[in-house]
Amino acid sequence: MSIRSFHPPQRTLMGPGPSDVSPRVLEALARPTLGHLDPAFVGMMDEVKSLLKYAFRTENELTMPVSAPGSAGMETCFVNLVEPGDKVVVCQNGVFGARMKENVERCGGIPVMVQGEWGRAVDPSMLDDALKANPDAKIAAFVHAETSTGAQSDAAQLVEIAHRHDCLAIVDAVTSLGGSPVKVDEWKIDAIYSGTQKCLSCTPGLSPVSFGTRALEKIKNRKTRVQSWFMDLNLVMGYWGGSARRAYHHTAPVNALYGLHEALVMLMEEGLEHSWARHAGNHLALRAGLEAMGLSFIVPEAERLPQLNAVSIPQGVDDATVRAMLLSDWQLEIGAGLGVMAGKVWRIGLMGHASSRKNVLLCLSALDDVLSRLKAPIERGVAVDAALQVLEGRSGDCLDQGLIAK
Amino acid sequence: MSIRSFHPPQRTLMGPGPSDVSPRVLEALARPTLGHLDPAFVGMMDEVKSLLKYAFRTENELTMPVSAPGSAGMETCFVNLVEPGDKVVVCQNGVFGARMKENVERCGGIPVMVQGEWGRAVDPSMLDDALKANPDAKIAAFVHAETSTGAQSDAAQLVEIAHRHDCLAIVDAVTSLGGSPVKVDEWKIDAIYSGTQKCLSCTPGLSPVSFGTRALEKIKNRKTRVQSWFMDLNLVMGYWGGSARRAYHHTAPVNALYGLHEALVMLMEEGLEHSWARHAGNHLALRAGLEAMGLSFIVPEAERLPQLNAVSIPQGVDDATVRAMLLSDWQLEIGAGLGVMAGKVWRIGLMGHASSRKNVLLCLSALDDVLSRLKAPIERGVAVDAALQVLEGRSGDCLDQGLIAK
Repeated sequence: MSIRSFHPPQRTLMGPGPSDVSPRVLEALARPTLGHLDPAFVGMMDEVKSLLKYAFRTENELTMPVSAPGSAGMETCFVNLVEPGDKVVVCQNGVFGARMKENVERCGGIPVMVQGEWGRAVDPSMLDDALKANPDAKIAAFVHAETSTGAQSDAAQLVEIAHRHDCLAIVDAVTSLGGSPVKVDEWKIDAIYSGTQKCLSCTPGLSPVSFGTRALEKIKNRKTRVQSWFMDLNLVMGYWGGSARRAYHHTAPVNALYGLHEALVMLMEEGLEHSWARHAGNHLALRAGLEAMGLSFIVPEAERLPQLNAVSIPQGVDDATVRAMLLSDWQLEIGAGLGVMAGKVWRIGLMGHASSRKNVLLCLSALDDVLSRLKAPIERGVAVDAALQVLEGRSGDCLDQGLIAK
Repeated sequence: MSIRSFHPPQRTLMGPGPSDVSPRVLEALARPTLGHLDPAFVGMMDEVKSLLKYAFRTENELTMPVSAPGSAGMETCFVNLVEPGDKVVVCQNGVFGARMKENVERCGGIPVMVQGEWGRAVDPSMLDDALKANPDAKIAAFVHAETSTGAQSDAAQLVEIAHRHDCLAIVDAVTSLGGSPVKVDEWKIDAIYSGTQKCLSCTPGLSPVSFGTRALEKIKNRKTRVQSWFMDLNLVMGYWGGSARRAYHHTAPVNALYGLHEALVMLMEEGLEHSWARHAGNHLALRAGLEAMGLSFIVPEAERLPQLNAVSIPQGVDDATVRAMLLSDWQLEIGAGLGVMAGKVWRIGLMGHASSRKNVLLCLSALDDVLSRLKAPIERGVAVDAALQVLEGRSGDCLDQGLIAK
């Protein structure tokens, strides 16, 4: 067997995540490993918690990263909050609502599905109707930013409806956190999970979560044990909690947490609102270019996520061929469609560090090149100019640096 | 809030893990992030599987790293193999047997505990008796290398007993893999899990697992769904499996896997048997020094793990004070006792990259210094010489390099 050290090519990551990771974060990963109970490391954990509170806009004490990817963050929310027999209303408008349903079922809960249109925001009146029809429901769950379609739902309103019906609200913010407004306390979200590899621009592998007092109460008053030992918050909190003495639960992913710490420090240096504005601005420029080229968004404008741009693939164009050419000729990754959208849409991410003016122009140029070579029915040579016109209309230099003095 | 980049101190990690991580592995972590479906990354995943088969000494196709720490690897074994009502005989001779019990219970299984002595190997006749008394048991589970005590059990024999009683064997090899013999195929282990942060000398956060055909059969013939979506091997295998087309399950921890790949390449370069010999040799030197100093091992010689040395704390000496002084004055981490051993033993790791002649001498010198300053009842100034005598009696230079030409 002759396997050597692996040296990955240098891509530009404009898919649905992972997004480009800043050299600062990569460098942080390589710092010397500490023991998971080392006082220096424990001090850093406290900082990570503070920084996550800042990113989530919350004062929730139980705010921390789960030591596994976003889907484990989702499962952490469901296994801790759903008890056997609990009815959970799940709004589905893309792939990740279906995953929520799976989670509810595997916890012994009873999912009630609110089936919305893929590519649209969750319809608040449909959630309201479902909760009226199911007065015994205990939880409502929805995806704030559907990574599979690029649709953004009105989280504040959906949570308000859930609470009006005496339900807790579980919110998927995997793709929204850091890239567009997520306001846990103001919106009164009870439980929320995210991922590190989207708009936080950290490497994949961790899942920030936050739980409010109503959720904590439900966890404390459970009649059954949490079915997962690894994800049981009663145990996890002994390690991540506020007490001076940390109890060993599992061995924390030390170096991955260095990376998250650095990514969050960068977010704080830029300022959360600046980050939101940067994502919004670059989206507008990319949109102008894509539309000038003749590509159309699948999500109506008012419901569109700035960080995930899903556009229809022009007729007669082979999805896989285009993505393979972008990867080989331009070292550029964009995303394929997921689920019912497979083969029909591309998902172009402008997330975190990858949401830059430079990447907007690269993506448009590369698409122009590849689609032209494939003789696809697009408007040639106009995309970059359309994007530049948008970019010149704003103080892009400032928004784009990723680092703005406070 | 003024939080800055975190720069950890440079420790020497001689606790129960994480162990020292090679600069090669740290550097690998910082390589550019790829998409989790990028062909270049998928190729690296195949190499990681091959390298893990080498480390586990197995041809099991289902050999891969779980995207979360060792305790999630444990849970992956239990949630996939234990169905509600299944009786599972669990051998406990330390902390981690208790965690297995927790896992069985949370899966709806019925644990039957074989309570052994802490600090001793699992007694095969006790397992045999328990299986005789419970002919309806479906699984036997035990810890090969108890990280809480440093005791090593005879895995081959215990698996043989389990099979004789028609049970599958689940084996915890978190601390043994890479540091002392683990032979999955030869010993006919059905399911095994480990961690990356012990003798593989990678950063913490991943858990290598391997499943044999009997285990796979049980998983395929389950009557109930696996209770965890994240850990359901039927789904995980769609991503990690052998098929040409990888299906998205969760976003892999890309950079952490770069680190594991590099750590496994280093293990292959050194050679598994050389690594075992290096761990054994350095243990003998450390032992000579510790015993010369007057410290005694809690595990009988024949049952001792070379990579985890648990010694009794001398009377009148405060555990925490000593460890704090080692950390502040020598940047050296050793481990505290766990569970019933807390405050009574130190656990000195010689794992992976940290199992070096240099570290043996550092640890003995530092302990000599700190214990002398605390006026502990030890023999001064003899430990290093005792260790050197052992080291000089073997070809230490070669064994110690960590890299031996094949």
